[in-house]
Amino acid sequence: MVANNRQNGDFHPSYLYNPELLVGLDWKSVQHSLKPSITNEDPGEDYFLVRPLRIDDYDKGFLQLIVQLTTVGDITKAQFEAQFLKMQKAGCYFVTVIEDIRHSKIIGSATLVTELKFIHQCGNRARLEDVVVNNTYRGKQLGKLIVLTVTLLAKKLECYKMSLDCKDPLIPFYKSLGYMLEPGNANTMILRYESKL
Amino acid sequence: MVANNRQNGDFHPSYLYNPELLVGLDWKSVQHSLKPSITNEDPGEDYFLVRPLRIDDYDKGFLQLIVQLTTVGDITKAQFEAQFLKMQKAGCYFVTVIEDIRHSKIIGSATLVTELKFIHQCGNRARLEDVVVNNTYRGKQLGKLIVLTVTLLAKKLECYKMSLDCKDPLIPFYKSLGYMLEPGNANTMILRYESKL
Repeated sequence: MVANNRQNGDFHPSYLYNPELLVGLDWKSVQHSLKPSITNEDPGEDYFLVRPLRIDDYDKGFLQLIVQLTTVGDITKAQFEAQFLKMQKAGCYFVTVIEDIRHSKIIGSATLVTELKFIHQCGNRARLEDVVVNNTYRGKQLGKLIVLTVTLLAKKLECYKMSLDCKDPLIPFYKSLGYMLEPGNANTMILRYESKL
Repeated sequence: MVANNRQNGDFHPSYLYNPELLVGLDWKSVQHSLKPSITNEDPGEDYFLVRPLRIDDYDKGFLQLIVQLTTVGDITKAQFEAQFLKMQKAGCYFVTVIEDIRHSKIIGSATLVTELKFIHQCGNRARLEDVVVNNTYRGKQLGKLIVLTVTLLAKKLECYKMSLDCKDPLIPFYKSLGYMLEPGNANTMILRYESKL
């Protein structure tokens, strides 16, 4: 198993997970998906930086970005930091962001969550969650870039599969990145409890 | 937030999570789903026991049960125990089983996994995973019982929603328990990495 942040604590604790995990991902395997070819280490513009979420991203607009996904609510800096630290301690959260370093703004994010299993030889399953890119940055393949970054990270972490739930209009996008609707096995069902918001 | 096993360490460490969490679940809210009415605390036969997974369930046929789901592989007792302890430490795994205490055999299992979010006011999402009941125990509503037990546990843990992925033939079963296919938002997509098995 590749070292993650629980097994290797010598990275800067401001990061949610070890940034070195993002070095040397297997971009060759997905090269056909991106034209022109970009990677997390060479994201197309020198002012884009792909990296793990940091605890100071509260001040870089992370919550203002993810509010495009759904209700976020009024989260204080202390609440954000407390949740960040819980995720960091758990070691299975790989929230990965794109920063526009010209403006110190988070403009894209995708979350990989890993799940321990007994099936598949005590394997790890991966999930893609909460994908969002600031829509003023269209045409730069940033959606593909952030999704493929965490998809390849899950591969590096030796997950046996990665899954996602999505709305109908996003099916072609994820198909273009290698995700499939498996015939007869592609249903997400949901039960919603009373909302807290 | 209700205490879970990370916040309240005074239960027997052989359990994956605090068995007291299974006391007093809100069965009134789902009473219509079960005829006759059964609950995790009153499962219909006095030889059925609904409880958290225990570290000694390796010897009670837990792996022989979940092999009905998919490939499990050759897992030693030491590997099982190591994975159990990782899950216990993480605090987000609620593998819940039904034991037939006449035979000291695990005959049903369902897993609730909780996920920390920033969205929904730093909320908790719940997932249902790896549901299986020994098919020699048909007609006793044990599938419904184990699924509803973890569904109500997620409610107690204040999750804002619970979701599951399933094959087409299981849709009516989960509908009968309150899960829904949300129009336009019911797709599971999967990318499989090279199998380890």
